[in-house]
Amino acid sequence: MLRRIDEALINQANHSLLNELEADYAALGDKLGRQNIDIEAITRSAAEFQIAVPSWGTGTGGTRFARFPGTGEPRNIFEKLEDCAVINELSGCTDSVSPHFPWDKVDDFSELKQTADEYGIKWVSVNSNTFQDQPGQEHSYKYGSLSNTSKEARELAIQHNLDCIGYGQQLGAKSLTVWVGDGSNHPGQQHFQRAFERYLASMEQIYKGLPDDWEMHIEHKMFEPAFYSTIIQDWGSNILAAMQLGPKCKSLVDLGHHAPNTNIEMIVSRLIQFKKLGGFHFNDSKYGDDDLDSGSLHPYQQFLIFNELVDAEYRKEEEFNPAYMLDQSHNVTDPAESLINSAIEVQRSFVKALLVNREALYGYQEDNDALMASLELKNAFNLDVSPILAMARYRKGAAINPLAVYRSSGYRSKMAELRPRDPNATGSGIV
Amino acid sequence: MLRRIDEALINQANHSLLNELEADYAALGDKLGRQNIDIEAITRSAAEFQIAVPSWGTGTGGTRFARFPGTGEPRNIFEKLEDCAVINELSGCTDSVSPHFPWDKVDDFSELKQTADEYGIKWVSVNSNTFQDQPGQEHSYKYGSLSNTSKEARELAIQHNLDCIGYGQQLGAKSLTVWVGDGSNHPGQQHFQRAFERYLASMEQIYKGLPDDWEMHIEHKMFEPAFYSTIIQDWGSNILAAMQLGPKCKSLVDLGHHAPNTNIEMIVSRLIQFKKLGGFHFNDSKYGDDDLDSGSLHPYQQFLIFNELVDAEYRKEEEFNPAYMLDQSHNVTDPAESLINSAIEVQRSFVKALLVNREALYGYQEDNDALMASLELKNAFNLDVSPILAMARYRKGAAINPLAVYRSSGYRSKMAELRPRDPNATGSGIV
Amino acid sequence: MLRRIDEALINQANHSLLNELEADYAALGDKLGRQNIDIEAITRSAAEFQIAVPSWGTGTGGTRFARFPGTGEPRNIFEKLEDCAVINELSGCTDSVSPHFPWDKVDDFSELKQTADEYGIKWVSVNSNTFQDQPGQEHSYKYGSLSNTSKEARELAIQHNLDCIGYGQQLGAKSLTVWVGDGSNHPGQQHFQRAFERYLASMEQIYKGLPDDWEMHIEHKMFEPAFYSTIIQDWGSNILAAMQLGPKCKSLVDLGHHAPNTNIEMIVSRLIQFKKLGGFHFNDSKYGDDDLDSGSLHPYQQFLIFNELVDAEYRKEEEFNPAYMLDQSHNVTDPAESLINSAIEVQRSFVKALLVNREALYGYQEDNDALMASLELKNAFNLDVSPILAMARYRKGAAINPLAVYRSSGYRSKMAELRPRDPNATGSGIV
Amino acid sequence: MLRRIDEALINQANHSLLNELEADYAALGDKLGRQNIDIEAITRSAAEFQIAVPSWGTGTGGTRFARFPGTGEPRNIFEKLEDCAVINELSGCTDSVSPHFPWDKVDDFSELKQTADEYGIKWVSVNSNTFQDQPGQEHSYKYGSLSNTSKEARELAIQHNLDCIGYGQQLGAKSLTVWVGDGSNHPGQQHFQRAFERYLASMEQIYKGLPDDWEMHIEHKMFEPAFYSTIIQDWGSNILAAMQLGPKCKSLVDLGHHAPNTNIEMIVSRLIQFKKLGGFHFNDSKYGDDDLDSGSLHPYQQFLIFNELVDAEYRKEEEFNPAYMLDQSHNVTDPAESLINSAIEVQRSFVKALLVNREALYGYQEDNDALMASLELKNAFNLDVSPILAMARYRKGAAINPLAVYRSSGYRSKMAELRPRDPNATGSGIV
Repeated sequence: MLRRIDEALINQANHSLLNELEADYAALGDKLGRQNIDIEAITRSAAEFQIAVPSWGTGTGGTRFARFPGTGEPRNIFEKLEDCAVINELSGCTDSVSPHFPWDKVDDFSELKQTADEYGIKWVSVNSNTFQDQPGQEHSYKYGSLSNTSKEARELAIQHNLDCIGYGQQLGAKSLTVWVGDGSNHPGQQHFQRAFERYLASMEQIYKGLPDDWEMHIEHKMFEPAFYSTIIQDWGSNILAAMQLGPKCKSLVDLGHHAPNTNIEMIVSRLIQFKKLGGFHFNDSKYGDDDLDSGSLHPYQQFLIFNELVDAEYRKEEEFNPAYMLDQSHNVTDPAESLINSAIEVQRSFVKALLVNREALYGYQEDNDALMASLELKNAFNLDVSPILAMARYRKGAAINPLAVYRSSGYRSKMAELRPRDPNATGSGIV
Repeated sequence: MLRRIDEALINQANHSLLNELEADYAALGDKLGRQNIDIEAITRSAAEFQIAVPSWGTGTGGTRFARFPGTGEPRNIFEKLEDCAVINELSGCTDSVSPHFPWDKVDDFSELKQTADEYGIKWVSVNSNTFQDQPGQEHSYKYGSLSNTSKEARELAIQHNLDCIGYGQQLGAKSLTVWVGDGSNHPGQQHFQRAFERYLASMEQIYKGLPDDWEMHIEHKMFEPAFYSTIIQDWGSNILAAMQLGPKCKSLVDLGHHAPNTNIEMIVSRLIQFKKLGGFHFNDSKYGDDDLDSGSLHPYQQFLIFNELVDAEYRKEEEFNPAYMLDQSHNVTDPAESLINSAIEVQRSFVKALLVNREALYGYQEDNDALMASLELKNAFNLDVSPILAMARYRKGAAINPLAVYRSSGYRSKMAELRPRDPNATGSGIV
Repeated sequence: MLRRIDEALINQANHSLLNELEADYAALGDKLGRQNIDIEAITRSAAEFQIAVPSWGTGTGGTRFARFPGTGEPRNIFEKLEDCAVINELSGCTDSVSPHFPWDKVDDFSELKQTADEYGIKWVSVNSNTFQDQPGQEHSYKYGSLSNTSKEARELAIQHNLDCIGYGQQLGAKSLTVWVGDGSNHPGQQHFQRAFERYLASMEQIYKGLPDDWEMHIEHKMFEPAFYSTIIQDWGSNILAAMQLGPKCKSLVDLGHHAPNTNIEMIVSRLIQFKKLGGFHFNDSKYGDDDLDSGSLHPYQQFLIFNELVDAEYRKEEEFNPAYMLDQSHNVTDPAESLINSAIEVQRSFVKALLVNREALYGYQEDNDALMASLELKNAFNLDVSPILAMARYRKGAAINPLAVYRSSGYRSKMAELRPRDPNATGSGIV
Repeated sequence: MLRRIDEALINQANHSLLNELEADYAALGDKLGRQNIDIEAITRSAAEFQIAVPSWGTGTGGTRFARFPGTGEPRNIFEKLEDCAVINELSGCTDSVSPHFPWDKVDDFSELKQTADEYGIKWVSVNSNTFQDQPGQEHSYKYGSLSNTSKEARELAIQHNLDCIGYGQQLGAKSLTVWVGDGSNHPGQQHFQRAFERYLASMEQIYKGLPDDWEMHIEHKMFEPAFYSTIIQDWGSNILAAMQLGPKCKSLVDLGHHAPNTNIEMIVSRLIQFKKLGGFHFNDSKYGDDDLDSGSLHPYQQFLIFNELVDAEYRKEEEFNPAYMLDQSHNVTDPAESLINSAIEVQRSFVKALLVNREALYGYQEDNDALMASLELKNAFNLDVSPILAMARYRKGAAINPLAVYRSSGYRSKMAELRPRDPNATGSGIV
């Protein structure tokens, strides 16, 4: 296996932390044992948990006001892949990458796939981009893509999505994620119903081009880039579109794409119930689509979402197989560091949700014992599962303390030398 | 026809205002004429517009902190009906009342219906109440009604809804509005999916009891009385439930029941498109379910909602026949005054929406001429249609200036004498 | 000391849990020791931490739609005090009660004080009530209290506050908390500036009546019961009023009284900086002033608030001595259980904030190492400090598992017998 | 006077509309006359009303996802000025421009001033830019400007602001507007208090450099570009900073910079009361800082803000002299068209607010006649004052229908020829 971080460096760092980890792990094992939870089973599940990294997340993000790039940023998909390998080698839980086209388009996809294979990285959901015009593009997306009143613009957007499927097939991906910025800034600018009908008609064309073993995921978003109305503004429009398009179309939840105060875990439950939960874009937010690090502001909300996911798994809910991905904008941190840490934070929520005694919870729910029900969740959340996460990493050769190893590796400063800034670099940092 | 306000009083007041009204009406007619709009056609439509009054809105509202009752409040459904008659006699646009049970339950519904008939008042959508326990109720709704884990509580709630249909049939109503406060205050308290399944199963029982020519309307609400999750929390859950229950079940939109920043007119469009718009509860709000007077804070939003409604009518959208109702809490005003004024404000939005040149608008939309499209709406909104509203009232014998007549009639102070406060008065002012 | 829960019951329950607690405590002590944190010092601080219980929180809360009372509810301040004693005996961290007048008014305050003394309960901040009319009240607060346009109503409200100070003096309290619901439901109803001027003039009268060693705390709230404008709508109006009134007047922060998305910990910092942080009403909320159990939804936000408080303490910030109180509405749980659990959740946030290495944090902040700074906080939050909290309770004779002891004590069912429902019971459950 | 739009074109267009305008104006005059309002006095006030155009608003705006530029966009301050002249010639109410540095920096400010003089355009508040790094900038603003932990970065930002004052003096401006994006994306990243202290210390340096007859305006904003905390996050921090800095420092209100549901008109009242209202950035928004066209979504809110302003004027409030400016991002319209229309929409709110009978309103407020008070405002808002606005334009030689004249002038297509796209164009379209 090709590696970007020296195994010896990891081993050495792990060696110095192992005794303490084992002590903490043993103590936690005892504690969980008293609750009849087998820590080893939990650690195995933790080790199996994987979440995809978005290729574009490896570059510094920005806002409409400014972007303050870091040094050593990746300038193309091969360099992004390199960073993704680093993230996976250290975190042990990010063995796949989600590409974005045309940003990540290459002439020879087999070469790209082979490189990824060598890193042990898989390709997952392919993202199309119809929210920007590309140089020389004949029909602009200024007034929309799949829902544009212009047939030519719509056809361009449809074809681009079909192309993305083709690229994805070459990479071994199995799903297409469709997010469009279509909408309006002025009351009256767009006829809501006609625009949605055009969107659905375009999506049907794309759906027809979907290979049999593929899924299509629709992403809703309340606002931005459109500031009055957005075509798929919420999970309601999302699921209605997915139902109309067919069984291979499902809904994708980005945590930052909802109205203030929305109960997102309840939306997750509804999508599970109606067999339409396709996947997630994990991040955190306080105001809008802030794309902050996952769990950095609302760790309990993230846990409650995983409570729904683990519960569905426990209940053996049908057609339940959501895709997990990070989708963040790293404006003030080293993107690799944020991605490593965020992947682990999502994994942390998953592991805590595993600790809930579901039968006890169901009992409290049945009895309307609201306080004990809430404590069944809260007690699991309050446990410090860091030793489980660290042990899972250790056992698969990743780092007990990934950020410390990353920093000591000097990876970023090496890259700063190897990757001088390129003004034509593609598509990093926008989410 | 039985009346509560002396016709002579109205005629006298109208007489003194008629000259000025005719001058304003003529000037507006000229102005509209230049846009090829026939003011007489608009005035006829205005005169036909009717919106229902909720029986419970005739009493002073309150909050969990306090209620400051006014004087002369109605103490039972006959007195509420009396106030509704006053409102309709003066406004000319509220010829129906929506009752709430058990608050408005009487022993002899034929007597109630006959009284209403004499006032020229029809009965529209019947509201069930499963958010409160009634004295001596055997199974509490504390932990839910239609979704309660207790079979007995669910059956009580189902039966109450079936009873409501029965009451409504005696009154000549044709629809049942179901709003439940079911939900939870703690993460974990309720299993989202199981609770929703119980709700749907209960609703199926009610749906089966629906007469052939009836509709059932589901009302969604983001929060309150439940503060963590609500069973029908938004239009997504609402329409999914309505779709599952069948063609006689539709969704009802209360303007104050959405997340902050929600584009409500877009939800209205979606419900029209999927043939599930059942009706409205009109009011206004700034923070939550504030139940303020319709159009008192966001008149342009109310206009944009009517823009969707008039557009659907114009496009002859199928299965489009929404019910209009006020649903407000009058904490600091005389409820009759607020209801008169609010009905007219809703009518105002309807009339302004009629003035939009739809073909011109469609053209701007097709051309992505965002500014002209927005101005096509805004210019209609900016017109002062007060003379049309006043003329429509005048021609049907209602008051040109309803509030002035109401005050000069001394109705409320007379009622203060006739209706001494009754601590056992039923169900005014909450919702 | 008078007790409501048998010490033997607590001791017996503690005895069976002690071994496990000691094991967990030792493991955590080792872990903290590696970070040079002395667990014993932390446990001592935990044991010293106290938060007041609001007298009215001991009854079941409700909404404007309904209240579903539990059994055995306290019917007067003596019975509320009894419940508060239970809460403190089990939690070990609620040794004071905050009364509310006129709800808790008694003829003989010395008797009330003596009873509290026997329970080891102190009286803290006195709350006035000018958001309700009392039976026979001559001038209504319907249109406001301290800011009413009616001089008579204002004077009534001023005098009530002065009376509250008098009651508090008899009980040994040292502060008055002023929350008013004054505001408006309609644009134009109130002249914003004149209303605020009347409020300030009234508050000056109250301020003059404040004993030298007392403080006055102003509580802001965005909305409810007023739904368009509220006189002290946010911390901006709050601090301006407090600055104008004088050094004995400070601002109080209720966590549920802010606009959606507000960064509350930043407001706490600003109030500390300007020496105007008077205290807190702790609770949690998702939508509005939901008054849910503290930390039940946003435990990390609660931690971040304590991060500011512990930081101010660490920096020896002047005039920093905030009062801590719970202020919750328990609609679906036994209030005593919620209060016990909430007090401990607040204590948990305090203890976690103590674990932050402040000098390390300052270093990261100075270096703009955003990720490490955020992890310095997150790592402290991720630690499970339950053993510290439990040990602090154990050592002072409270319960290792307070809820289990409470339930096994049968306290509530005994009260159900001793306290038959009284329709004239005063002021429980409204917050 | 130098002109960009041929006067003959305007005159010809006006000529064809004059008869109808005179008829509408006469009808409105009669109507107002009945209320004892002299339409001529109102029209004179309307004609005097002026609002500044932001130089950067003349280019197409964008989002972090994309910018879709239009044709013929201005490429430097001289071309922006040209567009501003067009806007003023047609609207008659935008006789000043607010520049932004370094975007609008020129070598010879006297030439720029002279050009503006020839167009009859004045220069108003100068905007500094410390939210972007300029090419070759030695110390980055990535982690803040005036509050940066780096002394060098702070000094750079201070000096830039002092430079801006110097540029403004050469142009005849009299105020400096300071908006900084400083804040943090992660809890812990920034020490709230220390950062605010650094900000205040930096601002003191700038304040010292302010000429005697200048003002400094602080702009608050809830979020963006910082997504966890912002240094001047709301009017509370804003006014505290302004009070600390001194009498020449005031607060500026941008309508899109508040938390959801905030009552902005109340904040305006508070700033007036405490003599700290410096000015406005007008725009409209639904979700965040959407920077949509003024009054395009919430025209009644805009009216209520002007109700406060006109009321302060009426009451001869001291130190009341706010600056009015548009601040919008035109992503899908021709910026000149949006600016023309928005200026008139703001003017419309001003004129409607003049029609309120203040003494009647005060009477209703004193009597707590909430409904009549609200109608006093609503009735003024419901009047169609378009004829007054059009007549004010006509009488000063501007266009009765400015957008029609603009389109018939072919200005933009001429510019498309004269202004080929320049990749080095400065600072259009970001707000």
